Formats: sequence, structure tokens, C-alpha cells
Amino acid sequence: MTEETGTIDAAGTEHEETPAVSFDADPATYRHWTLDTSGAAETGVAYLRLDIDEAGGIVPGYELKMNSYDLGVDIELYDATQRLRFSHPEVRTVVVTSGKDKNFCAGANIRMLAQSSHPWKVNFCKFTNETRNGMEDATANSGQTYIAAVNGTAAGGGYELALACEQILLIDDNSSAVSLPEVPLLGVLPGTGGLTRVIDKRRVRKDRADVFATTSEGMRGKRAVEWRLVDEVVPKRAWDETVASRAASAAAASSRPADGTGIELPPLQREETADGITYQHVKATFDRDRGLVEITVLGPEGGVPESLERVHELGAAFWPLAMTRELDDLILRLRANELELGTWLIRTRGDVEDALAMERVIERHSRDDWLVNEVRHYFKRVLKRLDVTSRSLIALIEPGSCFAGALLELALACDRQYMLDGTLADDAADDPSGPGQGDEAQIMLSASNFGTFPMSNGLSRLGSRFFGDDDHVAKLRQETDRRVEAREALEMGLVTDAPDDIDWEDEIRIMLEERASLSPDALTGMEANHRFVGPETMESRIFSRLTAWQNWIFVRPNASGPDGALRRYGTGRKADFDRRRV
Amino acid sequence: MTEETGTIDAAGTEHEETPAVSFDADPATYRHWTLDTSGAAETGVAYLRLDIDEAGGIVPGYELKMNSYDLGVDIELYDATQRLRFSHPEVRTVVVTSGKDKNFCAGANIRMLAQSSHPWKVNFCKFTNETRNGMEDATANSGQTYIAAVNGTAAGGGYELALACEQILLIDDNSSAVSLPEVPLLGVLPGTGGLTRVIDKRRVRKDRADVFATTSEGMRGKRAVEWRLVDEVVPKRAWDETVASRAASAAAASSRPADGTGIELPPLQREETADGITYQHVKATFDRDRGLVEITVLGPEGGVPESLERVHELGAAFWPLAMTRELDDLILRLRANELELGTWLIRTRGDVEDALAMERVIERHSRDDWLVNEVRHYFKRVLKRLDVTSRSLIALIEPGSCFAGALLELALACDRQYMLDGTLADDAADDPSGPGQGDEAQIMLSASNFGTFPMSNGLSRLGSRFFGDDDHVAKLRQETDRRVEAREALEMGLVTDAPDDIDWEDEIRIMLEERASLSPDALTGMEANHRFVGPETMESRIFSRLTAWQNWIFVRPNASGPDGALRRYGTGRKADFDRRRV
Repeated sequence: MTEETGTIDAAGTEHEETPAVSFDADPATYRHWTLDTSGAAETGVAYLRLDIDEAGGIVPGYELKMNSYDLGVDIELYDATQRLRFSHPEVRTVVVTSGKDKNFCAGANIRMLAQSSHPWKVNFCKFTNETRNGMEDATANSGQTYIAAVNGTAAGGGYELALACEQILLIDDNSSAVSLPEVPLLGVLPGTGGLTRVIDKRRVRKDRADVFATTSEGMRGKRAVEWRLVDEVVPKRAWDETVASRAASAAAASSRPADGTGIELPPLQREETADGITYQHVKATFDRDRGLVEITVLGPEGGVPESLERVHELGAAFWPLAMTRELDDLILRLRANELELGTWLIRTRGDVEDALAMERVIERHSRDDWLVNEVRHYFKRVLKRLDVTSRSLIALIEPGSCFAGALLELALACDRQYMLDGTLADDAADDPSGPGQGDEAQIMLSASNFGTFPMSNGLSRLGSRFFGDDDHVAKLRQETDRRVEAREALEMGLVTDAPDDIDWEDEIRIMLEERASLSPDALTGMEANHRFVGPETMESRIFSRLTAWQNWIFVRPNASGPDGALRRYGTGRKADFDRRRV
Repeated sequence: MTEETGTIDAAGTEHEETPAVSFDADPATYRHWTLDTSGAAETGVAYLRLDIDEAGGIVPGYELKMNSYDLGVDIELYDATQRLRFSHPEVRTVVVTSGKDKNFCAGANIRMLAQSSHPWKVNFCKFTNETRNGMEDATANSGQTYIAAVNGTAAGGGYELALACEQILLIDDNSSAVSLPEVPLLGVLPGTGGLTRVIDKRRVRKDRADVFATTSEGMRGKRAVEWRLVDEVVPKRAWDETVASRAASAAAASSRPADGTGIELPPLQREETADGITYQHVKATFDRDRGLVEITVLGPEGGVPESLERVHELGAAFWPLAMTRELDDLILRLRANELELGTWLIRTRGDVEDALAMERVIERHSRDDWLVNEVRHYFKRVLKRLDVTSRSLIALIEPGSCFAGALLELALACDRQYMLDGTLADDAADDPSGPGQGDEAQIMLSASNFGTFPMSNGLSRLGSRFFGDDDHVAKLRQETDRRVEAREALEMGLVTDAPDDIDWEDEIRIMLEERASLSPDALTGMEANHRFVGPETMESRIFSRLTAWQNWIFVRPNASGPDGALRRYGTGRKADFDRRRV
């Protein structure tokens, strides 16, 4: 990742190793943000202030000038958005603003982008997109409205951050403007949702969007409001009170509980070795020779909380939340740090009934309890991460697994599902104390498979799987809450194949060998197409139309080549473009 | 394009000149297809047989073995689909089949792809996609149903051709199969709609789609039917009669007229020079220094046909059809041959009322007259070509122009619209006999701007322009059929800017200079995002999710590099992949 260790060939391709990224963060040690919830108990309003430490880049090689960000800054932002939801039920409005004078945020650091490898750039954009989608998810599903108080210039990713908020207030100081200068200055797209949100969310006319996105100095004043780029331009003297007033109005309209008590999100316990990562409920083993990760999600152990009080008492130890946090962390780490492990094998282990009983708490209380609601939407967001993960995802459903209800979504998010028809061979069944050992593999549908955890295209995973065949989905609704074994699961279309115990090992081995032999890029493109059938939403369009074009542009010499705009930025030399239109 | 003249650098980028492509074709001189309409008067069924001349590549360097195609083959296919609609009202079903034994079609020729430059590959895929979308358009809007009679193996683009048909019959000869071997054999995607149509149109389950698209030998027999990859598997002995029977059933359900008389589509009259192309109703002037094309569409001259009879009598000389054919040809030629002319300036010239009177014929009769209906849908398809054209499109609305109704769609398809507020400066008004000279520029809305020519996302261009603001669209509906001058057009949101006669020339010049200075790739990506707001359809998804990913894969070394799968195919050596997932 760094210039020191990286080598860049003539086509702008980099071949260096990226440093291992950790996604751990804690508000007490943020370097770039301050999360101020001190007044929230009274006003319902929290302030999230961006004040980037120039010297705090996640890797060496650049300074984060002008409140520009890199992955490290966004890791803190993601942490803040999560804590706001789980630890701060009293926060109904989040005001995103800058701690620096005249500078709201200059977007992604350009020297960082210029020195980054293609995989790093793409992964960085994916994560930042997910965080911004999460901010909108907080407004839509948690009554926690984000307001951008743009108290300085918001350029590129800075304006995109504001676009992810529900309201944009721009200070009127005769200089602060909003802009998307990526196309004119850098030869890339505003790829963190910018182009899409401007037209789909802000509903800026396409010809105006065209003018705006090619005007490097951006827009301010009356025109910015008239074009709907911002909601309001506020004189400097009335700034604080206007921001507070808009925040208070949003807070007043919120559905957040009046008397909730937040839960702590303690650091994750995680054991890392060269060959894997082990959490309490999630375990990952790397097989570098075969280019794969074996992921096992453990179902709940012991009893199910009998009451909401107990759920709140357990807090971050409540299994659905604990498991989801670990899975989230694992996905992020594997995506950032293990690029060559191209296939993820996903297993579960536990009791089918226990897993389902646990998820009934979510089904029953997510509408009337804020914490259970947060757990539901968090698991939904983690599943969405799987949907846009550029790895082949294969579910292995074996005896002793607990793909039931919410956990079945893990299997349905996979590209393929294999279910063993029979019992495990001797060598695999060496743990006779394991749950269900000796029984055949079972899965179980529950109500939550029919819309509790929608994909970004708005469909449930079953709705996607059987797109256009509503009758079949309706039939499956009659089959919830009972154990389904392999042959029947195959007939119901819930699994791809159900080899018997004699063929199981060979079939899986051959399948994995074949997968590993294919072009990683072709697989990424294929999976990104197959996983999203039918309708698109603003969110899914960000990952399809916008991201796919951006990825193309990122590998083009006009952006990333030695004479490209991204590499020449700030050198005083203009980019040298291949002028052919493709 | 050819190996003889081309150079390929280490990154697989090619820098050679491509030969100028002509899109002219005539069934009498097809090299690769036979269009058999001999029985159609009686049965309503035409046979379109693919029998590719191996030596008939459009450029040197490869042989079109196994019924594999290149751009030249597809140019003939496009010509055939157009003639079927205009010259053959008696054709209600088109059976697409192969003239070769055991080989339906092997898809795009791989050596052709391997030796092609990136722009050529992308442009080739765009055109083939448009033609396949056009086949579906014939079924949806002309009662002309395409049926694929797959009488041999259909691989890759061969199966994608079948997917564009409404029914797929596969011969059961113990060897013929359908397949999408692009991912396993070539490291690229089935990019001519394949991945999208399999899940969106055929509604194949995503896990099965995954298995299918990674199985190079494809599928046949019962499983191909069960997975919905084909509609029917037909024993060899019953082949001809079953195909005829399915074709007859589709013909019986058609809305094509019983007594229509087709019109001829004579060769286009076209004068080409180094600096432009001049047709009868369309004129293009190249400005290579500034990287732009000035396109002028001339409105109808003289009277408007007073009757449907006269429209039929005029046939291809009927101005809307003649103009549309010329514009279609121009767009295709510019896209293929003039890659460095990155901005298209679009003007019209003629009388506003005449243009509108002409289009009223279409509005009035497209529902009850097959030919007028064809003209409507053809103009719609040509507008759609503009929507996916990777050039900056700028409409200049000046005195003497006739952007009214259908022709106003040309302006609305552009990225920006500039309308002169005032009269032209002396030097531009040197033709006092020109229509409307001395008057101010005017545009006119008509009923046809509200859905007659939908974009591929299903919205009208006004609906896209004012996405989410239905009230404004409803207001505009009250403003049809009257002349609107610049200031009012600006207030109505129909134009981007309306400089006065003093500023006009400078403003346009500066805007064009700025445009020309931007990264061609960033512009392509930006325009592809801005032009499509809101919903997506299968057709728009093919150009967004699928095409954008494919373009990315096409420039990746894993596909197109010297050790990539596309370049290594057929050499006996396996591709050498960078295994990092992006």
C-alpha cells in the first residue's frame, strides 16, 4: 500500500503487500472524530465532529490535509455509527459537522488513492459506501436522523458524506461550497454514492448534475438550494441556532424510545494466528494452499433469554448481537487482508431449535423494543455485506449444523448451498458430543426468511432466489418451523445439491478445486450479477452502475497510469489522456 | 484491430487503428445469414439461418470457425431484424436456427476478441446487445416473436442469441447443449445479456445460474428444461415439425396485420469525406482539433402526408423513417469509427410546426397502422442508442431549429441543453432563406414527450429529467403544442442554460473546451450514471450491472493481459492469474 514498499508498473498496477487492517475502534481513542452525546439526554441530539489528524494516516505515505480521509478515518466513523445505535437510544438526531474552520471535508485523500493498489481502492470504496448506507439505514429504521451541518467546503467524498445525511445545511460565508470535483480534477467518479445520490435521492436534474459534477469549484448560495444540492443556506451568524433547531425538529419526529438505556459494545475477543481467526461464536480457518477460508458460525449455547429484560441485561453478550459483531468483523478483515482466499466456505454448528428459538425473540420484539430492532437491522446489514463481498460464498450444510431462520439467511446469501444427504463419515464425526451428531443435516425455514432481512434490492433472499415465482414462495411460507432434510430441501429448491455421504467429500473437493481454477475477476463480475436479480434500488445501484463503472475507471491508465489524472494531481503537470472514447 | 497492424503492450492494451466499419447490408449479399421468408405469406413464419462463412471476418486475423461471429456477422443480423419489421408485415414468427450441422452458434469468435482493442470489444458488445434487445422489442411491440430452434450446440454468445428469443427449443441428439463457458474458459463474462437474461428473463435460480455459468460443457436434456435454460428438448425425428408447430402457435397469437404490404429499405445515400458525413436529412461535420462532431437533423421539408396511404406510398422516403435510418447509421458509424470525437453537438433545423405535424401522424396512427407503429418504435430504439452512447451529448437550440415533440427527445437525450435567448449573430444568420431565421429559438412539447419513446429504464425522458417530481411533469402536460422561447424553457426546466446572443458563442466555446479537457473514461462513467435515474429494467441492467463489470474485466490482465485467459485460449497453456480478489 505504501510508496515505500509498493511498486507500480507502467500500467499503474501495484504489486505490493497491503498492511493488515484492524477495524477496532473506540470513541475514547478516536484520532479523527469526536462523538459528543453530552446534550443528547436533554435534546436528543448528538454531534459527530470531523477533525482529522493529518499525521494519522492508516498507512504511511501521505498527510490527511484539509480534513481528507482514508480507511482509518472511515473505520472510526463506522464505529461511531454503530455506537450511536446501540449505546445511545437517547440520540435521535446526529449532526455531522467539522471541527475545522472553513473545511467540512475534502473527501478521500488523493495521494492515498494515487499510491493505493487497485484492490485497496475498491475495498476502501466498498466499506465507505456501506457505512454511508448504514447512516441512511439508521434514519429509515432506527429513528436516528443524520443531518449534515456543512460549516466549510465539502468536496468530493466530503459532499458524499453530506449526501448520505437526510438534510444538508450549508454555511453562507461567501466561500464554503459543495462540490464533486472528481471528474474534472482526478479523472475518476464520485464513487461513494455521489453520482447516484445526487440524481436518485436529491433528485437533481441530470443536466444540472452534469454541470455540477464537472465544475471543480462546486456551488454555493441560492443556486445550491435551487438545484437541490443542499436544503438550506444559513448565514454564519444564525448557524449554530439554525443547526440546533433543525436537529431538534428531526429529534421531535423520531420514534426512538424515551427511556431506553444503551448497551456497551466492548472490544471483541479475538485470537489471531497465521492460519485463522477465532472469536467466541465465529471461527475462521485459512487454507492458503486451496485459497479458501472455512467459516463456522456457532449457534447459541444454553438457554434462550426468557424476557426482554434479560436481553437488555445480556446486551452485547446476547448471542445474536455477539455473533453478528464477530461475523461483521471477520468479513471486514477477510475482505481487507486476505485477498487471495477467494472462496469462503460457510458452516454453522449448533441446535436447530435453539437457533430458531433465539431468533423468535427478534421476530416478536423488533417492533416494540429498540434494542431488538437494532440487532435485527445490524444482522441485516452484515448479510448485505456478504451480498457485495467479492468472494465465492459456498454454504455447507452438514449434520450438526443449525441453518434455521435467520442463520439460514447465511446459506441463502451464498452462491451455492450443498447439503449432505446422510450422516457424516467416521473421521468427521469424531466429536460424538457435538449437537445433532448422528442425525441427518436439517434446515428450517421461519417467518424471518420472508422479509425480515431484505437485500439491498428490497427483496428477501427467498424472494430473490425464486424471483418471479411468487407461488413457490407462498408455498414455502407454509413450510416454516419444521425440520427439513436434504432430499426435501433439494426438492423445495433451497439447496443446490444434496450429495450422499459416499459422494460428499469428493464432490465438495472437486467443486472447490474447480472454483479455485477460475479467473478471480470473472468470478467477481459473475457473482455481482447473479446475486442481484430483478429490481434495483438506490443502494443496489450504487454497487452496480456506479461501483462497476468506477472500478473500470480505476484500472484505466487515464486515471491510474503514470500519466493519469490521479497520479498527476498536485504535481503541477496535467494528465495525458488517451482521448479515445470507449 | 488486426494482428498484422496491431501492437499489444504488456498490459494487453492495443494501440492500432481500427478499420472504418460500414453498417450497410443487404439480404441478397449476406455472407453469414439467410433470411427465408418464402413461406411467410402462408404460415407467417420466417427462418433466419446462421451459416457463417469462416473466411468472412470483418477484419483479418481470424477464421470464424464453428459458427462463431464477429461484428460483421452481427451487422447482417441487425439488418435482417430491421427488414423483418419493415419489409415483412406478413412475418409473425422468426425462427432463428443454424445452417450448420451440430453447431447452432459458438458465440463471439475468441481470437477476434483476443486481438481486439478494448474500445473495439466494448463497442462490439454494445451493438450486439442493442440488436438482441431489438429482437425482444419486435416481440413486445410488433407481434413478431423470435423463437430459437437450437439444432446444435449453442455456446456463449450462441446461447445468448437464443436467450434473446422468446422460446428456446433444443434438439435432443445426445450431444447438442447450451452453455455459457465464458467464465471457465475465457475469464470474461457472458456479456451480451447472458448473465442477466438467465436470471431475470428465464428466472433460473441464482445458485443454478452459478453452476451453469461455471460449467464449460453446458447442459442438455431434462436438466436443461428443469432448470429453465431451454423451454423444450425435442427428439431429432420430431424436430422440424415441432419447430414449425411452435412457430405456427406464436404466429397465430400475433397482432401483425393480415393484409400489410412491406416497404423496401433501399441503401442509404451518404456522402463521406474526411471531415464529415452528409445524408439527406442528417449532416455531421467533424472538428478533429476540438474533438467534436456537429450533427444537424433537418426537419421535414414540404407538406405532411395527408393520409396513411401516402405514408405507405412514401415508405422509406417518409421523413420520420428516412431521418431515423440516417441518424441510426450515423450513430453507429461515429461510435465505431470516430473514437476521438468525444463530444456530439446536436442541432435541428426546420419548421417547428412542420416537425410537429409530422409526428402527429405517428401519435394518431401508431396504434392502428403497423408501419407507423414500426417507425415509432424504430425512433425509440435509435434514441436508446443515444442514451448508451459513450460520448458527451450537447443539444444546441438556436433560431431556425425545430426541437418539437419527437425531435425534442433528441435534446432531452443529451447531457445538456443550451438554448439561445435572442437571435443569431450576423455571421451565423447568413442564410436568410432558412426557416425561422430572425425569429427567436423555440421548442415545443407534444403528447409524444410523455411516454411514446420510453428509455430502457421504462421512463420517458421527461419522467427521467424530473424524476420524483410528478407534479411538474403533470404541469408540463398542460403546456404542449405551443411555442416556448428560451427564458420560459429555462423556467420550465427544459434547458440547462439560455445565454443571450451576446454571450452565446463564448459560453458554448468555453463549455466545449472544458469538456474536451476532461478524462474520456470519467466522462463515460459519469454520463452512464447520470442518464439513468431511478428504476432499472432487465434491459437497463444489461447496460449497467453487466456491461460495466464486463468492461472492467476486459481491461484486467487476468483476461486481456499476455498471460490472461482470453489471450491464452487455444494455445494449450493455462492462464496465469493474479489470484487477488478485488
